[in-house]
Amino acid sequence: MPSQDIRSDALLNALRAEARLAPTSGIGEARSYGMGREGLIPLWVGEGDLPTPSFISEAATRSLAAGETFYTHQRGIPELRQALADYHARLFGRPFSPERFFVTGGGMQAIQIAARMVAGAGDEVLVPTPAWPNFAAAVEVGGAKTVAVRMDLKDRAWTLDLDRLAAAVTPRTRAIFVNSPSNPTGWIASREEQAALLALARKHDLWIVADEIYGRFVYGEEKRAPSFHDIMDEHDRILFVQTFSKNWAMTGWRIGWIEAHPALGDVIENLIQYSTSGVAVFMQRAGVAALERGDGFVEHQVARAKTNRDILENGLGSSNRISFARTNGAFYFFFGVEGFDDSMALAKELIDKAGVGLAPGKAFGPGAEKYLRLCFARRTDHIEETVRRISAFLG
Amino acid sequence: MPSQDIRSDALLNALRAEARLAPTSGIGEARSYGMGREGLIPLWVGEGDLPTPSFISEAATRSLAAGETFYTHQRGIPELRQALADYHARLFGRPFSPERFFVTGGGMQAIQIAARMVAGAGDEVLVPTPAWPNFAAAVEVGGAKTVAVRMDLKDRAWTLDLDRLAAAVTPRTRAIFVNSPSNPTGWIASREEQAALLALARKHDLWIVADEIYGRFVYGEEKRAPSFHDIMDEHDRILFVQTFSKNWAMTGWRIGWIEAHPALGDVIENLIQYSTSGVAVFMQRAGVAALERGDGFVEHQVARAKTNRDILENGLGSSNRISFARTNGAFYFFFGVEGFDDSMALAKELIDKAGVGLAPGKAFGPGAEKYLRLCFARRTDHIEETVRRISAFLG
Repeated sequence: MPSQDIRSDALLNALRAEARLAPTSGIGEARSYGMGREGLIPLWVGEGDLPTPSFISEAATRSLAAGETFYTHQRGIPELRQALADYHARLFGRPFSPERFFVTGGGMQAIQIAARMVAGAGDEVLVPTPAWPNFAAAVEVGGAKTVAVRMDLKDRAWTLDLDRLAAAVTPRTRAIFVNSPSNPTGWIASREEQAALLALARKHDLWIVADEIYGRFVYGEEKRAPSFHDIMDEHDRILFVQTFSKNWAMTGWRIGWIEAHPALGDVIENLIQYSTSGVAVFMQRAGVAALERGDGFVEHQVARAKTNRDILENGLGSSNRISFARTNGAFYFFFGVEGFDDSMALAKELIDKAGVGLAPGKAFGPGAEKYLRLCFARRTDHIEETVRRISAFLG
Repeated sequence: MPSQDIRSDALLNALRAEARLAPTSGIGEARSYGMGREGLIPLWVGEGDLPTPSFISEAATRSLAAGETFYTHQRGIPELRQALADYHARLFGRPFSPERFFVTGGGMQAIQIAARMVAGAGDEVLVPTPAWPNFAAAVEVGGAKTVAVRMDLKDRAWTLDLDRLAAAVTPRTRAIFVNSPSNPTGWIASREEQAALLALARKHDLWIVADEIYGRFVYGEEKRAPSFHDIMDEHDRILFVQTFSKNWAMTGWRIGWIEAHPALGDVIENLIQYSTSGVAVFMQRAGVAALERGDGFVEHQVARAKTNRDILENGLGSSNRISFARTNGAFYFFFGVEGFDDSMALAKELIDKAGVGLAPGKAFGPGAEKYLRLCFARRTDHIEETVRRISAFLG
């Protein structure tokens, strides 16, 4: 009789390769190393420290108490699709049809469905990196390949080399993933860069999967980042993936949406049906409350994040051992430390010696290896203390 | 400039074929035809008519009020995994490790993840039919092929021809989907049939995806249906897909679980991470309440379903125009009417002339074409009225 371990290995090896080989999140490794350390300031996850505002949670509670616990529309309840249309109309200054919106079990499910819509076995998808790793993982679990296109950090700014991106297109390329503002770099695609990306996609008949999740977390004069909404034709091949998580402190809820041309509605509905079969009505009621009454909360979060960004850049930027780009969008300080090329080793040393928990860059693909990601959507006094601790560590 | 329609078609045709061609649910077509008809008794969906018991909803409400709105364990909170282990220990009379349980966004997500684990492009999965269509659809969206193996209705019982199943195995076969008690037929695999299925799987190194969701909805002397749990070795290639939906009237919640050998835990965690990134803590608290305090509710539902089954079989079974199997498990009356070979036409006629909404068999694959599925997990007076209406229709 083979040993237990050998039999367990055999079981594991009987799995489909793409599933078995899906990468474990590198963020998780640092987190496991540091979890439970006394006094540690945990800034590794892309999540704020505020619970969901009560006016949002109470909308869910009322719905539950009213017995809204049955199956519902696979595309989302009409009230939420209308609220999404109204929200987009406010944000982009033109009308939107509710038929463009499809409610999903989080931004991650929106991404998974978008990936299934555009790429399978034999296909390629371009991903500018550093990038949040889950998009590439979702594509690869589906049997397609991702091709990383390195971005560059120069003069305190990340830049996307559009020629390098165009050179990566092959006959198998089906889509480009565009995350702006970017997690983890804070890069924001300018209007001109978006136009160039759209022209490239049109030229090669590629889809764009647009992740504009951090579009309201911007720190300049504008109220939001440039969006493909500003320049697209309605028949462009663009799928927007979105979430309630960041704007409204609803990370744990797992509710988001896909926005796409209504002609794709039947396909999206089927893909929702055959993956999670919809989102609970009481969750969706909370989404309506967030969209209709949540603007003040979003503004509060953005203002706090801006304060925190300034504290970090002023506090750590003067050290000549730190390299980073000015962060104009999203809520991450993404930085390298002179003398450390291995971000996992650096992350562990910061846990041990500075009591600060950060996400190692190696999780974010080519070009990110030596950087660390620090989430600053947190209490300002914790960010101030973080600056003191990292400064002391740097000496 | 091409017309709007031509441009919308082009957009649709730019999608990946497996996504574009995912079948629309045939249940949906009948439902759309009959929705909103005054006085119609809707029995098309696989869902009871009771809202979630308040002790379950209130567990979610308390968690929400306590601010449990952050990211959590991808495998599920420890309390729920422990509650699942305890529940299984009670049901199967032996200990279970909490490490075997992985919380998902509904039974559908459990199925999707199981499908991803075992079959991709080039692979085949065997599905005895009639079968609930979503399993096959999830497999095919992932690029694999399903092979239907027809079951037979003889002498008021559905039977699975094990030789026919064995003959369908090819070098590309990776798994067998076994749904017992069956939706829609009510077929229950006997201990001997399960042993034969397991022997076939062992012989050809196949996975079994075991859907025992209706295991407690049985109408004989036993408290539950036979389960692969009764005969399996811990290293057998069996993935159990499960849901809170039916037992605890939580269809709309979208919470379920996969049960598998703990050696597969990292892979399952990754697949959860890259599809929905977990289930809300407040939902999971409700799951704990259901498992720990929900036995009485399950027994009430099963007793009511048994009463309803008897009313249907006694009321309609005497008509020589009706063909059906005795329903010993699940909560569907699955029947054909002499003179009707097209179940969609029959479903529409019953909507128009009898005011009863049923699911047409054509949605359930080969062998199901001429049957209708009636969900009897409903108020008994509605089932009595349904019998009157269908009897009058039959004349």
